[in-house]
Amino acid sequence: MKSLSIGIDIGGTNSVFGLVDTQGVILASDQIQTKGHPIFSDYVAEFSRLIKSKLYEFPDYQLTGIGIGAPNGNYRTGTIDHAPNLPWKGKVNIVQEFHDSFKVPVFLTNDAKAAAIGEKIYGGAKDKTDFIVLTLGTGLGAGIYSSGKILYGSDGLAGEFGHLTSTQLDRECACGRTGCWETYVSATGIKRTVFDLLATQPIDSELRKYAFNALEAKIIAKYANEGDRVAQRAFEITGRMLGEAIADLYSMFSPEAVFLFGGLANAGDILFEPARKSAMENAMQIHKSKINIQPSQLDNEYAAVLGASAMTYEPA
Amino acid sequence: MKSLSIGIDIGGTNSVFGLVDTQGVILASDQIQTKGHPIFSDYVAEFSRLIKSKLYEFPDYQLTGIGIGAPNGNYRTGTIDHAPNLPWKGKVNIVQEFHDSFKVPVFLTNDAKAAAIGEKIYGGAKDKTDFIVLTLGTGLGAGIYSSGKILYGSDGLAGEFGHLTSTQLDRECACGRTGCWETYVSATGIKRTVFDLLATQPIDSELRKYAFNALEAKIIAKYANEGDRVAQRAFEITGRMLGEAIADLYSMFSPEAVFLFGGLANAGDILFEPARKSAMENAMQIHKSKINIQPSQLDNEYAAVLGASAMTYEPA
Repeated sequence: MKSLSIGIDIGGTNSVFGLVDTQGVILASDQIQTKGHPIFSDYVAEFSRLIKSKLYEFPDYQLTGIGIGAPNGNYRTGTIDHAPNLPWKGKVNIVQEFHDSFKVPVFLTNDAKAAAIGEKIYGGAKDKTDFIVLTLGTGLGAGIYSSGKILYGSDGLAGEFGHLTSTQLDRECACGRTGCWETYVSATGIKRTVFDLLATQPIDSELRKYAFNALEAKIIAKYANEGDRVAQRAFEITGRMLGEAIADLYSMFSPEAVFLFGGLANAGDILFEPARKSAMENAMQIHKSKINIQPSQLDNEYAAVLGASAMTYEPA
Repeated sequence: MKSLSIGIDIGGTNSVFGLVDTQGVILASDQIQTKGHPIFSDYVAEFSRLIKSKLYEFPDYQLTGIGIGAPNGNYRTGTIDHAPNLPWKGKVNIVQEFHDSFKVPVFLTNDAKAAAIGEKIYGGAKDKTDFIVLTLGTGLGAGIYSSGKILYGSDGLAGEFGHLTSTQLDRECACGRTGCWETYVSATGIKRTVFDLLATQPIDSELRKYAFNALEAKIIAKYANEGDRVAQRAFEITGRMLGEAIADLYSMFSPEAVFLFGGLANAGDILFEPARKSAMENAMQIHKSKINIQPSQLDNEYAAVLGASAMTYEPA
C-alpha cells in the first residue's frame, strides 16, 4: 500500500490542504474559508469532513501523518497562540483536534517555517545547512535554518523577524506595537508605502484610482514596470528596507542564502535590485562577499502545503 | 598524569591566558599586551614563551588542548578576520600558529561565544538549551545558544548582534557603519551617552571633570548611585535601549534567559531595572511572560578564559 501525508496551510483568508505522496507530488487539494469560521471546533469539523471526503477517493493510499503551517503555530505545544490575523482568540489546540479526528501523528509550525522546510526538502536549499526564507505576504515571516535545523527557540516561538521593533520606525503594526519590519516589508507594507507617497507627493499616478482594499502587490508591480513613478518609488523604498533587514539577518545568522517567497517576491528585479544593493551597502565587511538573495524555487501556490507535509517525514 | 587545558582571552588591550584543570579551576594565569604587538608572529612568539614558561611549573599535568576567544574569531576557519579593535589587519591564522607552537588541538571562537560557553559549562546556564550572553564591554557581543548549540552560521561569522544597523540610530561605529547597537549599549556607548548629555543638557555633574579617555563605566555607575543626574540619565537611556535590543532577541530566539556580562553589567539595578522594564514594554505579547534578564554567574575576570578552555572539552 502506498503512503500519503496531508499538508495544511492556514492563512488569514483561506485554509488550503493537499494530499501529498512520498515524492512530493500533490495528488489532490482543496480549501475552505478561514474567515467564515469564528468557532474553532466548527472550523475543524468542516475542514476534516472536506479532507476525509477527498481521502476517500484514494483508497490505495495509507495516511501517515498531517503537517500544519499556521500563523503563530507553535511546534512545541501544538497550539496556535494569539494569532492576530486568525478568527480564534487566545490559544487553540489544533494538533490535538486533528489528531482526535484522524488518529495519525500531527505536526504544527508557523507558515514561514513550513515554507522553509519546503525549500529544504523540495526547493533551492536541498544542499544548504544555513539559509533563511522570508515570506512577503500579508505580513513578513522568517523560516531560519541554522546548522541544518529550523530555529524554534525554547518554546517554539522563535524567528519572529518581521516583528523586530528596534527599527525606530513609526508605523503601527497589527500586533499592537510600532515599528515592526512588516509594516514596510510585506505586501501590506508596500500598499501602505504607496498610500504614504500618494499622500505626500504631488505626482500623477494610476494608483490614485485604487482603494486600499482593492490594491494588491501585483498591481503595484504592473504599474512600476509600465513606468508609474509612485509604483516605482514604492518598490525602491520597500526593496531598500528589505535589504537593510537582510543585512541584519547576515549579521545575526551568516546564512548561505536568503530566499524570498510570496506575492511581493514575484515582482522580480524591481524588488530584488534595490534589495541586493541595500543589503551590500548595509552588511558588515565580513559578510559583504556572501550576500546571496534569490527567489524561492517552490511553486508559490503549494509551497506552504508541501513544507507542512514534509514535517511528517522529517520533523525538524 | 593529570590534564590541563589553556584558555586564552584576546582583548583589544590585553591578552590573558589561564591554565585550567578538568574541574574548571584556574591553576595559573598571566597576560601580555595586545596593543604593543603590531606584527602577529612576534605576538604569538612572545605569548607562547610566556605560556610555556608557566606550563614548565606544572610538570604533573599534560596539556590536552587550547581554546582561544578573540574579537572576530572564526570557529570554522581558525582565523581572526578583520577585527577593528586588534592591531592585525585582514585575516590572521591564529589556530595554525598556536598549533605549530604547542602541537595540541586548538579551538577559536569570538570572545562573546567563549563567554556563553563558559556560562553553559560553569555558570548559570548549565541546565539551559536556549540562552544568550550579552557582553557589555568595549563593544556589544552576543553568544547565542539555540537548541543546545552555539549559533555559528555557515562560516562561523554569525551572532554579530551588536552590529545590527537597522536601528536608524545615527552614531557612527568603529566598524565603519552607522547605527550599530554597540554605539549605545556597551561600556563605550554609555560614555558616548554621557558626553552627549553633557553637550546637550545644562545640568551640573561630577562627570564634567572627566576626559573621555579617563571615564569608565564603573565611574559613571558610582556617580549614578550617589545621585548625579547626568550619570543616572545615562544609565536610564542605556538600560532602555538594552531592553529594546533584548525584546528583539526574544522575537528572534525566544530564549529561556539573557545573561549580561562585562564591566557595564556590574552596575546592577541602575542598568537592570530600566532594561527589564523596556524589554517588557517592547516584547511581543507571546514573549512578555518569559522575559528573564540576569547577571552572568561567572567571575568577570576569568569568564572568557574559562569559556575558551571549555571549548577543548566540548567543541560546540
